[in-house]
Amino acid sequence: MPPAELDLLRVVLVSPRNPLNIGAAARAMSNFGCTHLRLVNPYDVAFKEARSAVRAGYILEQAQVFDTVAEAVADCTLVAGTTAAAKRDLHLPLQGLEAAGDLLRTHLAAGPVALLFGSEKFGLSNEDMSHCHWLLRIPTRDEHVSMNLGQAVAICLYELRRDTRQTPHPFPAPAPATGEDFERLTELLLDILARSGYINERVSQSSELKLRRLIRRSGIPANDMEAWLGMLRQILWKINQ
Amino acid sequence: MPPAELDLLRVVLVSPRNPLNIGAAARAMSNFGCTHLRLVNPYDVAFKEARSAVRAGYILEQAQVFDTVAEAVADCTLVAGTTAAAKRDLHLPLQGLEAAGDLLRTHLAAGPVALLFGSEKFGLSNEDMSHCHWLLRIPTRDEHVSMNLGQAVAICLYELRRDTRQTPHPFPAPAPATGEDFERLTELLLDILARSGYINERVSQSSELKLRRLIRRSGIPANDMEAWLGMLRQILWKINQ
Repeated sequence: MPPAELDLLRVVLVSPRNPLNIGAAARAMSNFGCTHLRLVNPYDVAFKEARSAVRAGYILEQAQVFDTVAEAVADCTLVAGTTAAAKRDLHLPLQGLEAAGDLLRTHLAAGPVALLFGSEKFGLSNEDMSHCHWLLRIPTRDEHVSMNLGQAVAICLYELRRDTRQTPHPFPAPAPATGEDFERLTELLLDILARSGYINERVSQSSELKLRRLIRRSGIPANDMEAWLGMLRQILWKINQ
Repeated sequence: MPPAELDLLRVVLVSPRNPLNIGAAARAMSNFGCTHLRLVNPYDVAFKEARSAVRAGYILEQAQVFDTVAEAVADCTLVAGTTAAAKRDLHLPLQGLEAAGDLLRTHLAAGPVALLFGSEKFGLSNEDMSHCHWLLRIPTRDEHVSMNLGQAVAICLYELRRDTRQTPHPFPAPAPATGEDFERLTELLLDILARSGYINERVSQSSELKLRRLIRRSGIPANDMEAWLGMLRQILWKINQ
């Protein structure tokens, strides 16, 4: 499924209290190309501070403020709420964010969708949730379910923007050597090359970086590392004679 | 692919400057079950402030501080760096986070992995990147690539923890009401509308058919039918007073 266009998404923050969180939500929205921020009953001082604080100011400038959730979602044909879902009787279907992503992407192709986030301290109230068609949960571990608001918004937007068709180029993978091994190899070879006159005795930083990258690209596997180090030690010994 | 266990992941923050970001990174780590935080050359005041600030304090308590990237990744068999990848010549393979997630999950089943995040202002330097096997990029839009550090950490951990096999729970299809129920509802509502003057007392057949179709389209489930009938009976009683 292709990444969603987020022009029809409305991010709705209900009773946010911390200007840093409002600003962080706006920044993530700017990162992922979502412009419609709506605030329900925000703490006024927080909203004013957020406006003056961050990049993505254009999103805060255009943000709409409402007194009630009903008004904030009035034009939306799907309303989904976010919840940590800790032990509450939710009265609504609950989806994991991964699955919710598919549902939201599908719906965003057709009509405006509201995604609701509750206040930092209490989350969405039962009253807020009664405006939702269903709820979604970010897969945090049970021992610490409650996320920072700005991070929760960022993660949900990433899920909508992620390209579900993307696959990696597989790397061939023999057991890889450690960073420590690579660093020892780099230092040995630098020493040898300097003493051989391949590079100046006073090694420039760019030579060192080039060499470190060269060695990392070699893909020398763990099993071969001792052989490499042994060869180079012998060479160094010879040069030092 | 199942969600990764993050016990072998090391989150490495290189030269972080803002205590709120260090705290936010630790909180997201706690949310997603990742305990190994490493800091390279942090701004001391920032680290001390972060320690005293947030939940997830146990992660900051156990955080290790290193002078160099080389030391911070010494035990890792894969080192991946994060980058906004804006116009720089990176000298390294670059993966989208979606694809990188698969690679990291696979590697985490086998050995320790370092995931590097650069400073808030400059990201990872070329020197930092020369310790990496490859780089990954969060799919932000080109006009605003630079993410908040705490949000970037949260998104990467979510990608690793997301259950790629998850599909939406089918929404429970409520048992549909019977024809008899719909007919009782239709008759009650007809009666009410006639007595309210919305339609003529001598109801035309076409009005009745329209109303019956309207009510059938409502999709009222069987479990809700008694509530609807109860409300309408009460309304009829009131009108008949």
